Amino acid sequence: MKPSGIITLTTDFGLSDPYVAMMKGVILSINPKAELVDITHHIRAGAIRQASAMIHETFSFFPKGTVHLGVVDPGVGSDRRLIAILAGKHYFVGPDNGLFYPIIGDDPTSRVYQLKETHFFLPRMTHTFHGREIMAPVSAHVSLGVPLERMGPEIHDPVKLEVPLPRHKARVLYGQITHVDHFGNCTTNIRKNALIRFLASTQPVIEVGQLNIKHLSLTYSDVDGGQPLALINSSDWLEIAVNMGRASEYLGINPDELIGTVVKVNRPS
Amino acid sequence: MKPSGIITLTTDFGLSDPYVAMMKGVILSINPKAELVDITHHIRAGAIRQASAMIHETFSFFPKGTVHLGVVDPGVGSDRRLIAILAGKHYFVGPDNGLFYPIIGDDPTSRVYQLKETHFFLPRMTHTFHGREIMAPVSAHVSLGVPLERMGPEIHDPVKLEVPLPRHKARVLYGQITHVDHFGNCTTNIRKNALIRFLASTQPVIEVGQLNIKHLSLTYSDVDGGQPLALINSSDWLEIAVNMGRASEYLGINPDELIGTVVKVNRPS
Amino acid sequence: MKPSGIITLTTDFGLSDPYVAMMKGVILSINPKAELVDITHHIRAGAIRQASAMIHETFSFFPKGTVHLGVVDPGVGSDRRLIAILAGKHYFVGPDNGLFYPIIGDDPTSRVYQLKETHFFLPRMTHTFHGREIMAPVSAHVSLGVPLERMGPEIHDPVKLEVPLPRHKARVLYGQITHVDHFGNCTTNIRKNALIRFLASTQPVIEVGQLNIKHLSLTYSDVDGGQPLALINSSDWLEIAVNMGRASEYLGINPDELIGTVVKVNRPS
Repeated sequence: MKPSGIITLTTDFGLSDPYVAMMKGVILSINPKAELVDITHHIRAGAIRQASAMIHETFSFFPKGTVHLGVVDPGVGSDRRLIAILAGKHYFVGPDNGLFYPIIGDDPTSRVYQLKETHFFLPRMTHTFHGREIMAPVSAHVSLGVPLERMGPEIHDPVKLEVPLPRHKARVLYGQITHVDHFGNCTTNIRKNALIRFLASTQPVIEVGQLNIKHLSLTYSDVDGGQPLALINSSDWLEIAVNMGRASEYLGINPDELIGTVVKVNRPS
Repeated sequence: MKPSGIITLTTDFGLSDPYVAMMKGVILSINPKAELVDITHHIRAGAIRQASAMIHETFSFFPKGTVHLGVVDPGVGSDRRLIAILAGKHYFVGPDNGLFYPIIGDDPTSRVYQLKETHFFLPRMTHTFHGREIMAPVSAHVSLGVPLERMGPEIHDPVKLEVPLPRHKARVLYGQITHVDHFGNCTTNIRKNALIRFLASTQPVIEVGQLNIKHLSLTYSDVDGGQPLALINSSDWLEIAVNMGRASEYLGINPDELIGTVVKVNRPS
Repeated sequence: MKPSGIITLTTDFGLSDPYVAMMKGVILSINPKAELVDITHHIRAGAIRQASAMIHETFSFFPKGTVHLGVVDPGVGSDRRLIAILAGKHYFVGPDNGLFYPIIGDDPTSRVYQLKETHFFLPRMTHTFHGREIMAPVSAHVSLGVPLERMGPEIHDPVKLEVPLPRHKARVLYGQITHVDHFGNCTTNIRKNALIRFLASTQPVIEVGQLNIKHLSLTYSDVDGGQPLALINSSDWLEIAVNMGRASEYLGINPDELIGTVVKVNRPS
């Protein structure tokens, strides 16, 4: 796969410290023509599942051959492996902690290599910032066209990621809230296709906390301002929202407990 | 107008979700050489007037022919129009909700086109993210030199934006606070030129809440640290500030009520 | 020194206002090919020491000949000087308020020039935003190869920066917390080399507030999740951290008082 020259970055580093810039400096020292694009640096500290979903939903909007660097690495300095992946015609570089597992799983032809060739690392190594010393320089080399097999041995047992799946019991589909976005919209783990199959052209009643939503909307403005709704969002997940408002507040659930909250989809009899 | 190759982005998306990166990926898939610059993604959700002022004050610092993409689009999925504009030798792409009205108004030769040609959109369309599926790809095509008239029909009735204007009564000019910046500086809607004309070389007494400021300063350090002052700011607005401090706190007004607070400029008799 | 074409930006502007984008627009109007990289815009308002440390630790990860623009300029509009520097094979542009003093001090061959040649400034000048009108355009010209001596006279008395240094008394090294990062890790002002020399192969007992840490770890995962530790961080400072947790909260010290908190390193007898 010919590299696009673009490298995206996803981390839990925030933007107040120099960590992201250090990685960018390392990349540009190796590939001065790399185009760098931030996905986000506001992943919750160590939240592998959140980062995984973010990269999974975003990577395919970039040109094929883009390198996606993901540094959510709570095991830094331990014996966890670092890997580079070719899957879905994109490259991925990061820790082998499940971060890219959904992407690997989507492409039966995907290949995973362990980063072993120190030749592609920074000469000076620390115990706490392998994003800078290993993953950033490897990403830069991949963006220049160095084949992944030169980075180290192929591996066939990447670490799996446990993600909560919806359950289905008689006329009820049980999902949960997995993400609350900047607008307070609550994404669930119920996929468009699974929902359509389950509903079979009926209109659901959706229950979250004290709230009952009696049908699926197409877009936010289908209901009046301040009113709750459910829709299939732009990433194909069932989402609970409030038009011109914040579902995350409307639901009246403690913000710390929102993620994991049960969402029940009832199919009429 | 020859495109500069630069595309700026202004949204209310925040930086914690993948939305901005998705738009950038779409743009770079169409124009891999586009130079992307964020103006801000921290517009308050749906705050068209705030976004409008931000773009209005910033665009002219970029090279002529720059494309300014503004996605503050609370009406997404409704029948609101999307538009592309050539005004002031810059391009603008976004919803027709008033966002670019002040810029259109500044240039009598400006031209506005409705985005209708689906050929320039992403093939896969949702009901909730036209920033990604319409506005981002159109911006990319404009940055490559596609003429606006190919995007759809010219329109002559873009949606207006109501902005509060200062009022003038005898020896008093009444304005209001329109923005509180990162430093707590409070921008008003009183323009440098209007103020100079009104004062006619006299020194004003400026009243905000309990505060009386007895003259205009040139810069923050004209008063002691911790002291309030009024000056013409770098965007030519009357601004209330505190040297080495935060006017937004000094004023003792509830932060939620700061925007809209009356600012009285008294001309001596 | 041949410019790399890269310009980094470090400010206390935040990302909610158009200030950073205005500077980027000015730079790209002069050097459309400049590669712009944010170090951070979340320096505390006017915190020269914080910005200084950030740039000092980061610049050398970028290619030689990079221009580092630092705008933390509480004295804007006063008679403080603005300067451009060549030191350590990198360029620096900003106010002469101590921001670059540690970098100048590290390189005995460094040269400092006062920005005087208005030819390189924006034609329209304000009293409150010299980052936009002087420092950004000068950075752009430097990135294009304009020699620093054309910017104005060389100066030999740049403003010094006072930084708290560790003190050493018998078997105790006294340092302090200088930075709390995004993960709650607390950086001290004790350097790796000074610490190694002081300890001479013994294991220290490190005291911070009520906390006693009995040895140096190599990395976070050397202790159990939730447990405190001390290590040499990736920038060679002694750091207090909590594995999978936030030292800044674990210490039980008022967050406003964390910076400056004494850290005692005891050498066994």
